[in-house]
Amino acid sequence: MKKETLVYEGKAKRLYQTNQRHVLWVEYKDSATAFNAAKKATIDGKGRYNNEISSLLFQKLHENEVPNHFVTQISATEQLVAETTIIPIEVVVRNIVAGSLSKRIGKEEGTILPKAIIEFYYKDDELDDPLINEDHIDVLQLATPRQLEEIKQLAYKINDILIASFDQCEVKLVDFKLEFGLNHLGKLILADEISPDTCRLWDKATEQKLDKDVFRRDIGSLTDAYEEILTRLKGVHHV
Amino acid sequence: MKKETLVYEGKAKRLYQTNQRHVLWVEYKDSATAFNAAKKATIDGKGRYNNEISSLLFQKLHENEVPNHFVTQISATEQLVAETTIIPIEVVVRNIVAGSLSKRIGKEEGTILPKAIIEFYYKDDELDDPLINEDHIDVLQLATPRQLEEIKQLAYKINDILIASFDQCEVKLVDFKLEFGLNHLGKLILADEISPDTCRLWDKATEQKLDKDVFRRDIGSLTDAYEEILTRLKGVHHV
Ligand SMILES: Nc1ncnc2c1ncn2[C@@H]1O[C@H](COP(=O)(O)OP(=O)(O)OP(=O)(O)O)[C@@H](O)[C@H]1O
Ligand SMILES: Nc1ncnc2c1ncn2[C@@H]1O[C@H](COP(=O)(O)OP(=O)(O)OP(=O)(O)O)[C@@H](O)[C@H]1O
Ligand SMILES: [Mg+2]
Ligand SMILES: [Mg+2]
Repeated sequence: MKKETLVYEGKAKRLYQTNQRHVLWVEYKDSATAFNAAKKATIDGKGRYNNEISSLLFQKLHENEVPNHFVTQISATEQLVAETTIIPIEVVVRNIVAGSLSKRIGKEEGTILPKAIIEFYYKDDELDDPLINEDHIDVLQLATPRQLEEIKQLAYKINDILIASFDQCEVKLVDFKLEFGLNHLGKLILADEISPDTCRLWDKATEQKLDKDVFRRDIGSLTDAYEEILTRLKGVHHV
Repeated sequence: MKKETLVYEGKAKRLYQTNQRHVLWVEYKDSATAFNAAKKATIDGKGRYNNEISSLLFQKLHENEVPNHFVTQISATEQLVAETTIIPIEVVVRNIVAGSLSKRIGKEEGTILPKAIIEFYYKDDELDDPLINEDHIDVLQLATPRQLEEIKQLAYKINDILIASFDQCEVKLVDFKLEFGLNHLGKLILADEISPDTCRLWDKATEQKLDKDVFRRDIGSLTDAYEEILTRLKGVHHV
């Protein structure tokens, strides 16, 4: 497999074309950003942790028949994925109140939700990724009602699998963000990453934060937190 | 009918108990507020226009079998309504892009929507009436999924009726806000008001604003605008 032209550079990853059609080469970067990139830093090792963690979790999702873009990990910071046309919706699944949900509905961080909440945000940096509803999605033609239904069903299934995986390593899955795309056959698959950058993960016993909130809120070492998650996941998942 | 104790004073209306159970006496005030009451003024005549317009439109909705709280108009600024327990959701129906929707989805004011959009806002001044979705409503137990379904069906029906009523007087119904409540039998009915305070109304030919945006944006005389709406409605609706 050969890395070819850069197709997209985001805040956390670089995507390259390869010599194989429909396969992208992903490089995880060492940069950390928060608040729509208003806060930035370079953190050695971050790219590796996210690549390893995301590779492991996407592998786990494959085993559970969740269609996703992951092909294989090719180095500490690189993986191959199926190329998709990303649906510009950030799908957020929440099990416990935290962050913006706490502000929106006036419930304290840590409140356990009686059932998972799904939220959709419009992936548009200029608009600051606003919350949208299904009518907005329809009018903006971001996804068809059928695709949206499939996205919700997949999101609930992914939530169940991830809750169980993290539970085994004594971690509470508070919330997480997913991105879906259409592969070259038009099939809806999970794309992007699942990592401490895109999840809120709390230690089960102490509620210590083991995710990007450590960076957002300046409350400790990001690499220590991410390493802890990777070590725990590797301890229980032998992929 | 006798006016008894004041039960609630809001920004636009006063509600009193009456000597008849389950019937409230509503007084429309001359105060105008915008941006969650950050902007305020007293405008002579406003209470009368809103009372007259809302009475006329609720009457029209009764004729079209939309269950609602309106009983009768008792003076220029007063009406009797059925008491309800208000569901703390502002239901916004939109036919044309304006206001916060324009900012949220990045579409120009005036863009005609291919179909009506319904939005739900959590009626909570401290939280600044945030946009919420059906999962939030469920978790907050603001309404049951069944009530919410009924609310949506009623909102579409009301939209059809109002579009036609305003169309007859050469006015475009851009968007409007509804509140629903449960009457003493637990039946879901439309409550609150429908007036230029709670609708965006544009002259069909000139797109001149004939609603509270005149006040929000300081672009003319509010009473002239509201009087124009009342005159036009009276011209075509003989209630
Ligand atoms: N399989 C895939 N096919 C195509 N694009 C993908 C795939 N997986 C992820 N992407 C996209 O790769 C881009 C780069 O990821 P990165 O996380 O760096 O972006 P970002 O900084 O979060 O910015 P944004 O997501 O707002 O574009 C993202 O836009 C993401 O949607
Ligand atoms: N039939 C009804 N039964 C009970 N309450 C009602 C009824 N109709 C309207 N209300 C309530 O009357 C209150 C007073 O109306 P007003 O428009 O002045 O309130 P407001 O300033 O908009 O404040 P808010 O709606 O945030 O309480 C509102 O809270 C409204 O929900
Ligand atoms: Mg990203
Ligand atoms: Mg009001």
